[in-house]
Amino acid sequence: MDIEKANAQATEQMMEARPVLVGLGKARDVIPGMRENLLLHAGPPITWARASGPMQGAITGALIFEGKAKDEAEAQALVESGEIELEPCHHHGAAGPMAGVICPSMSVYIIENKTHGNKSYSNLNEGYGKVLRYGAYSEEVLEKLRWMEEVMAPVLADAIAASEGIDIRALLAEALHMGDEGHNRNKAGSILYTTKLAPFIVRAAKSADVAADILRALGENALSVLNPVMAACKAMADAAHGIEGSTIVTVMARNGTDFGIRVSGLGDRWFTAPVAVPKGLYFPGFTAEDSSGDIGDSTITETAGIGGFAMASAPAIVTFVSGTPKDAINATMEMYEICYAEHKYFNMPPLDFRGTPTGIDIRKVVEKGITPRVNTGIAHKDAGVGQVGAGLVRPPMAMFEEALMAFAEEYGI
Amino acid sequence: MDIEKANAQATEQMMEARPVLVGLGKARDVIPGMRENLLLHAGPPITWARASGPMQGAITGALIFEGKAKDEAEAQALVESGEIELEPCHHHGAAGPMAGVICPSMSVYIIENKTHGNKSYSNLNEGYGKVLRYGAYSEEVLEKLRWMEEVMAPVLADAIAASEGIDIRALLAEALHMGDEGHNRNKAGSILYTTKLAPFIVRAAKSADVAADILRALGENALSVLNPVMAACKAMADAAHGIEGSTIVTVMARNGTDFGIRVSGLGDRWFTAPVAVPKGLYFPGFTAEDSSGDIGDSTITETAGIGGFAMASAPAIVTFVSGTPKDAINATMEMYEICYAEHKYFNMPPLDFRGTPTGIDIRKVVEKGITPRVNTGIAHKDAGVGQVGAGLVRPPMAMFEEALMAFAEEYGI
Repeated sequence: MDIEKANAQATEQMMEARPVLVGLGKARDVIPGMRENLLLHAGPPITWARASGPMQGAITGALIFEGKAKDEAEAQALVESGEIELEPCHHHGAAGPMAGVICPSMSVYIIENKTHGNKSYSNLNEGYGKVLRYGAYSEEVLEKLRWMEEVMAPVLADAIAASEGIDIRALLAEALHMGDEGHNRNKAGSILYTTKLAPFIVRAAKSADVAADILRALGENALSVLNPVMAACKAMADAAHGIEGSTIVTVMARNGTDFGIRVSGLGDRWFTAPVAVPKGLYFPGFTAEDSSGDIGDSTITETAGIGGFAMASAPAIVTFVSGTPKDAINATMEMYEICYAEHKYFNMPPLDFRGTPTGIDIRKVVEKGITPRVNTGIAHKDAGVGQVGAGLVRPPMAMFEEALMAFAEEYGI
Repeated sequence: MDIEKANAQATEQMMEARPVLVGLGKARDVIPGMRENLLLHAGPPITWARASGPMQGAITGALIFEGKAKDEAEAQALVESGEIELEPCHHHGAAGPMAGVICPSMSVYIIENKTHGNKSYSNLNEGYGKVLRYGAYSEEVLEKLRWMEEVMAPVLADAIAASEGIDIRALLAEALHMGDEGHNRNKAGSILYTTKLAPFIVRAAKSADVAADILRALGENALSVLNPVMAACKAMADAAHGIEGSTIVTVMARNGTDFGIRVSGLGDRWFTAPVAVPKGLYFPGFTAEDSSGDIGDSTITETAGIGGFAMASAPAIVTFVSGTPKDAINATMEMYEICYAEHKYFNMPPLDFRGTPTGIDIRKVVEKGITPRVNTGIAHKDAGVGQVGAGLVRPPMAMFEEALMAFAEEYGI
């Protein structure tokens, strides 16, 4: 078995994957394995009892949205009785930010990897403030979700169908030249996305007012492209998965309680360890005491070579996650230490257009004692509150060590 | 007389000027001193005989557009007979890119400096390819101008009126964090501008198709915000003009034949010298042999502390104007040598959020032997052709020396 060759193939496939946004449909209709009593969530598998506050909050909100529960107690009863089942987004080709809860009635973006044919999914981004993904589920949150579902989604679906599809890899490459890193900073990407879809949205909307409302919602939300980007990264990472003998990480994800990774050459097995609490900047009135453990599937961006790995592209992000522009350069430089490749399509002007570090190699992580850097939002630890800050976090080393031991065992090394 | 105090006041007023896009109207209705037999043009005053190819081409196109001439010979006769007069944009509070020709029937953006009350103007950006500002005047060019005037302008006028105005200083500050330098690279600024106006455009357009066409024209043109930006820089520079005893440059402009500057403490006098030919990258099939002399009012961006002075913000621009990202940093560092201030609102993440070099001091230019760096497009030397490349250029030192001598004379130093 040739690990080098396997890793070269895995990273080549990750980089040559060309994820294109091709559609939008209800989760129940388009996500493989989705069913009426199922909720998808971020990170590795979790139970109600072990779920973090924001995860319980988002599950509650989703069940209220589905008309299946009235409050947290009812939601808990449904989940604990097994009447409602929980499964990771990643078991269904999907990825969701923060709590990452996707329920059957939600619309999801459909990404197709035009190179290898695999598909992936993510839900619509809700914007800032009180939002389900951070565990909030007040009437204001549900009202926004209903507007997104009833007003925005049908127009977006028609608009995307009328377009020739939006090449998210190309969009990301452009955004990395415009100060984005693709995870916490998607300011340029979101307005690129909005302007590309705008002519189609205008034609698809049944009135000018509806078109204007949707354009405003997309254009003013600097994260509107985050979810298509996450699905695109999922499609790229999936293209690298299942290569016999490869030590490349193809999933990193957190559910607020556990961090979990999957490795290309180790099938669908999760390697997990307790999440850390992110370090960063807190909104006025909040401190690290209020923070939930690290949560969300958005680490699929770092898995695919952007986000914290492309920090050098996004010096302005330090005002949001703390640090100096020099720290941003250093973050990227450090990630070259643990990655197998440099990206062919994602490059960074401040580093003389060098490709982003791509394809985390568990051997290098363990050998060098360097864990991946992750940019992230920070959720309040209690259900129903929401975002309290943004910052940086490292996954626990234990998962990588466990994965490396499993690899040695699997391949008889 | 206290030159330091005068320069502090001039640069303070330049930086505190807050240019807001408040309207769009026909040049004949809104530009002070505009009249039916007048064409405005870039740079210092020029005659037909001394005008460069692209300037003659743009004058010809504008007179065809106005229905006053059929071809270049007729245009020449009108201008040489004095029936049509030429005056610099800068004599009317305006600024136009490249040839910068503004005729009475053209719509122009209206910028108001909310701090000091002065107004400024620029025309609509035509996008890439064959365009009037580069001296092209084929039927395709005129067709585009007619569409802009008849279809796009009325909608933009209504959209801007319905908005609360667009704060261009704030937009530029944001764009400088997104890889723009505000002169040759306005990619982020143009989509920020498009997404801000989009909801108003949708409501102002009489049909979804018209709205879609306008959104596409603005969103796909990475220079759509250049003209409002130039007018905004004009408003900022004008706010610094006329300060007794100030050696700060308040206009830099080229007509393709002469480069001209004005100085805050020296009234409306132009100091001119022959333009250089820009160095840069040429489109396939063209070389420096094809290039016109340096042309355009867009150097008002450098005059106001962005463009070539903010290169450090825009490392990706080097793929367009040639050089390396390190050169971009060096360009900005060098400009600190000749500027009086560092901008309070325009800062650059790659330089630890340091303010851009702002307020060119003719004393420093002459003393240090460093002329301002300018990013620019390159026009073909013949009328009717268009853009052939983009690059960097330096204004002639002679103007600054002449201005400094005039300053010494004026103030009896």
